[in-house]
Amino acid sequence: MSRTVSTSTPTATGPVRLGPQARAALRPTAGPTVTAGFWAERRLANARVSIPQGPELLESAGNLHNLRLVAGAEEGAFEGHYPFVDSDVYKWLEAASWQLAQGDGDTGALAAEVERIIALVAQAQEEDGYLNTWFQTGKGEGRYSDLRWGHELYCAGHLIQAAVAHHRATGGGQLLAVARRFADHIDSVFGPEHSGRPIDGFDGHPEVETALVELYRETGEQRYLDLAGYFVDRHGHGLHGNEAYCQDRVPLREAETVEGHAVRQLYLLAAAADLATETGEAALTEASERLWHAMATTKTHLTGGVGAHHDKEDFGDPYELPNERAYCETCAAIASIQFSWRLALLTGRARYSDLIERTLFNGFLAGVSLDGETWLYVNPLQVRDGYVDAGGDQSSRRTRWFRCACCPPNVMRLLASLEHYLSSTDGNGLQLHQYASGRFSGDAAGAPAVVSVNTDYPRDGRIRVTVEQSPGQPWTLSLRIPEWCDRYSLRHGGSGDPVAEAVAAEGWLRVERTWAPGDELVLELDLTPRLVVADPRVDAVRGCAAIERGPLVYCLEQADHPGGGLDDVSIDPAVPLTVKERPDLLGGVVTVLAAGNRSTPPPTASGWWPYRARPEAQSDSPAPAPDGGTAIELTAIPYYAWANRSSGAMRVWLPTD
Amino acid sequence: MSRTVSTSTPTATGPVRLGPQARAALRPTAGPTVTAGFWAERRLANARVSIPQGPELLESAGNLHNLRLVAGAEEGAFEGHYPFVDSDVYKWLEAASWQLAQGDGDTGALAAEVERIIALVAQAQEEDGYLNTWFQTGKGEGRYSDLRWGHELYCAGHLIQAAVAHHRATGGGQLLAVARRFADHIDSVFGPEHSGRPIDGFDGHPEVETALVELYRETGEQRYLDLAGYFVDRHGHGLHGNEAYCQDRVPLREAETVEGHAVRQLYLLAAAADLATETGEAALTEASERLWHAMATTKTHLTGGVGAHHDKEDFGDPYELPNERAYCETCAAIASIQFSWRLALLTGRARYSDLIERTLFNGFLAGVSLDGETWLYVNPLQVRDGYVDAGGDQSSRRTRWFRCACCPPNVMRLLASLEHYLSSTDGNGLQLHQYASGRFSGDAAGAPAVVSVNTDYPRDGRIRVTVEQSPGQPWTLSLRIPEWCDRYSLRHGGSGDPVAEAVAAEGWLRVERTWAPGDELVLELDLTPRLVVADPRVDAVRGCAAIERGPLVYCLEQADHPGGGLDDVSIDPAVPLTVKERPDLLGGVVTVLAAGNRSTPPPTASGWWPYRARPEAQSDSPAPAPDGGTAIELTAIPYYAWANRSSGAMRVWLPTD
Repeated sequence: MSRTVSTSTPTATGPVRLGPQARAALRPTAGPTVTAGFWAERRLANARVSIPQGPELLESAGNLHNLRLVAGAEEGAFEGHYPFVDSDVYKWLEAASWQLAQGDGDTGALAAEVERIIALVAQAQEEDGYLNTWFQTGKGEGRYSDLRWGHELYCAGHLIQAAVAHHRATGGGQLLAVARRFADHIDSVFGPEHSGRPIDGFDGHPEVETALVELYRETGEQRYLDLAGYFVDRHGHGLHGNEAYCQDRVPLREAETVEGHAVRQLYLLAAAADLATETGEAALTEASERLWHAMATTKTHLTGGVGAHHDKEDFGDPYELPNERAYCETCAAIASIQFSWRLALLTGRARYSDLIERTLFNGFLAGVSLDGETWLYVNPLQVRDGYVDAGGDQSSRRTRWFRCACCPPNVMRLLASLEHYLSSTDGNGLQLHQYASGRFSGDAAGAPAVVSVNTDYPRDGRIRVTVEQSPGQPWTLSLRIPEWCDRYSLRHGGSGDPVAEAVAAEGWLRVERTWAPGDELVLELDLTPRLVVADPRVDAVRGCAAIERGPLVYCLEQADHPGGGLDDVSIDPAVPLTVKERPDLLGGVVTVLAAGNRSTPPPTASGWWPYRARPEAQSDSPAPAPDGGTAIELTAIPYYAWANRSSGAMRVWLPTD
Repeated sequence: MSRTVSTSTPTATGPVRLGPQARAALRPTAGPTVTAGFWAERRLANARVSIPQGPELLESAGNLHNLRLVAGAEEGAFEGHYPFVDSDVYKWLEAASWQLAQGDGDTGALAAEVERIIALVAQAQEEDGYLNTWFQTGKGEGRYSDLRWGHELYCAGHLIQAAVAHHRATGGGQLLAVARRFADHIDSVFGPEHSGRPIDGFDGHPEVETALVELYRETGEQRYLDLAGYFVDRHGHGLHGNEAYCQDRVPLREAETVEGHAVRQLYLLAAAADLATETGEAALTEASERLWHAMATTKTHLTGGVGAHHDKEDFGDPYELPNERAYCETCAAIASIQFSWRLALLTGRARYSDLIERTLFNGFLAGVSLDGETWLYVNPLQVRDGYVDAGGDQSSRRTRWFRCACCPPNVMRLLASLEHYLSSTDGNGLQLHQYASGRFSGDAAGAPAVVSVNTDYPRDGRIRVTVEQSPGQPWTLSLRIPEWCDRYSLRHGGSGDPVAEAVAAEGWLRVERTWAPGDELVLELDLTPRLVVADPRVDAVRGCAAIERGPLVYCLEQADHPGGGLDDVSIDPAVPLTVKERPDLLGGVVTVLAAGNRSTPPPTASGWWPYRARPEAQSDSPAPAPDGGTAIELTAIPYYAWANRSSGAMRVWLPTD
């Protein structure tokens, strides 16, 4: 399923670059761009609002103060609640670096901020390479005294990712030098017992593993890859008491399902897929795909979000997918996308990009407000009429910044590097995994194959692909047909004739021919809205349906349904759904309208007990019927756009009875 | 709705005794006994196993060591994880005291253990009355430095409750003296700003409030009642940052629903009902009844258990009642019973004892194993096929003892004093709230009215009540007709004739006559098993029904359903339920048999995505149908008896589709 490909393709500049020996079906290419349309709008808020505000927020929260403290540039005490606050700085640096590569926005000011903060990070580093302001300021019991919760290697991982991003995006080497010194220090401290290194252990929160693989890819240093492999291998042998939370219950190659802390699990799996790609180890590839399958089939919410327990931020049991208590941490959606993308490259399978699409447009994107100013941590699928906001990071209301601020800069870095998740090459052409207006290039036996894409997807289903550059020999353009899509057409741009040579295979529609610049294809994905239901084992949504249109999951929001709450609303599935374009609403959305009903639940016999004998079962004591209810028109909006107006109830799953 | 009653009734010896000025519709009486049947069996395990093992477990967990440490009788460091570990000792002392009053079991050995531990508690007390081993051993930042989490007054409350129990049950005064010294100390430290006392505050975990009311009742000291009132009044004014967890979001008299940490909320409400009873304050009575109503109608699981969030042990939003993540802490069930009982006495309303019955037989009793040796903390309503036991106190598997061991001794004290929740007097006779074989007495205008009850309830619905002692004048025997009961009869014991003068009114069946010793009535409650459904706003159980028989909620357990799990099982509601007595099973239960089906969910088109287009909505792309499934007989057992065999899946709510 995986094969060695030519390494003569243009060098990728995104967050995943494969090593020279990598055995992957696909590989990223240099210079994809997103120029207009849906994602360009989202990225604009990221570039103009979210990222520029980062330094100020990191200043307010104390993150930069902590670095100055350690650098000796300021007096005072450590600020912040967690040992991993440095990682917020690193994730912002990574985001800003990818943003600098875009050249969008006020690049000069941003570049200056990046340089200023990189200099601060460099100043804070110890002589021996160690860097963690929590422990350096005397919090905790000393270096590596608490691998379960100390997050030192987790922070190192984000430092490395930021350094790689900065180096790839700008060519600058200062942060990369800092990261290498820390990586070298870690490599001198951690290793198997026989290695003679002082500590045989791993960080309770994976992240350094996948970062070390990327550092290997950036520098060519094999020992970073080896160190990543060592850390992955040590999981599941009891070094953290076999705790699922720390991904220590079972060795990864033996695991049957995803479990424990969702972000920890998925960062570890991203590293496993990276290692499988670089080493070609079949067992690791199989485990990665097996665990992805277990996640997708039994532990993923409709939005692509993952996580079922607030307690320990845990995946939960199979088919345990609560709505109001969904714990779809934005970071877990990002981790899922990272894991899926690595499997997409490794195997070439379309399903991984299917899940990326669903997660990007729903579970991920809901994590940031339309204006890029406020955030959601848990992304529930329901807010009840009687919801009481107890505040805190896990609130179902948007927040300016979190005490545990992992999600906001994570969103920033993904949005700033989004174009790298959209296309790939297999050495014989170009694969379009996601549809966005822009320019994408592949490799056709060593020569560039370049197309431009024009689309208003996902508001509209028409995707126009124009060949911009093509070598003389045939190559294959592959278009992903999304899992949700039952009806589509592919036609020639000029004539409108069907593309006779298109071959559909396992989620891909492939067209091989000798292309000429100006050749144009039009893919039309049918966006008729649809009702979906869940596997009956998902108890939380029995008797309910959800509205989807294209890749978008829809929801009802209180703001569109005055005159009552949403707890007593149902949908009539017999009446066809209709769409209404609302360019004025929520940045421009297509709403879906449905026939609904609002009814008052039947009174109970006692007046106080909400359970009653099942009517059919007790024919001699008929229970009171509910009132006929009031017919109402339901207006559904895309889930990603919820919580951008007044607070109130929201629900994705609608009773159909 | 409340009225002043005579105080000439025999003095109650149970955990609730009303003060001389109390304005209550009902009051407890002295000397109820449970002699045989269901509860006698459960109490035997408590008396023979749970309570006798207490000291050994408190020794292993370090609780007694901490007391010896403070008493100067031992060297070492504080053991245990929480500042409230002393309360485990006090709750055990309370349980043992009530048990001594029973005279059941090896009273001599138990009495000696009680005396030994009381002496230890007395030795650990400071000169000024303060007592808390966590702070006395130097943990934390000093006395009353952390009222939110320090639990000092919470522990004091349990000390007081134990002291009152010991005094009432044995007449011994040593522990009462310790408790009074501590209460006097607290009274000298806490008070409103104008009082000149150093601290204006309250404990984040209520408990001392209701204990102080009981101390007032035991000693006649008005200032204990006043102090309780002060503490209750200070909730909801921001002293704990208006945090719902600490019951500080809103003043109790203004609250519209129960919220925050369930046990904290209900201990506070028990105190509010106590204060309303003693002071006659209408606003407090109204708030107590209003909040009970909000709890019962929108936040109570079918089992009577309360709590919807593992995170912060929170009540959750209205109708948010998850099954697998129910957080029905055993202590919350006990707190609910305590609150309901106080309202039952205050108002005389049957509904409060309705909820007590449901909670006792289900949500409470599931908290202890049949043999009295192991415990459940959270009492879920579902355990999935793929459940992974991560261990810890919140496991869905029984545990020998908890790190946070609040529940086990709480169960012990309730079971040891259970008979006090079964009957009452209104000064004109006797009310039987719950049905158990034993002897119960009321007050008929100053003279004792005594009956014996014989029943195998809830296995059997026949309850035989025989008058043992009666004054010459008429008095009223009131029998509660449970909320679940649609059909019942009341007949004379000898002739079998209907009791013509019985008057049904708001949950009570009242018979007023001039009774003579030997008079016998037979109440027959129809125990035909039934299927129940929930208010449609309880999303978690849409399309499901649960089996009940009498007051018992039933569940399916893996052990009775070999050949597959329970996630794919449904019930056929059209086939009548049948019962099968199983004296051999789980200490003797009546099982309920139902027609069921086990089916394989339909395959998904993709092979990996568990959501699909709703079949009816997309007639041109019919979804695959589920297989016909396999008809199976379902065997339901009482919920209280689950988790007493091999581990495996369990579920209360069964899909009916």
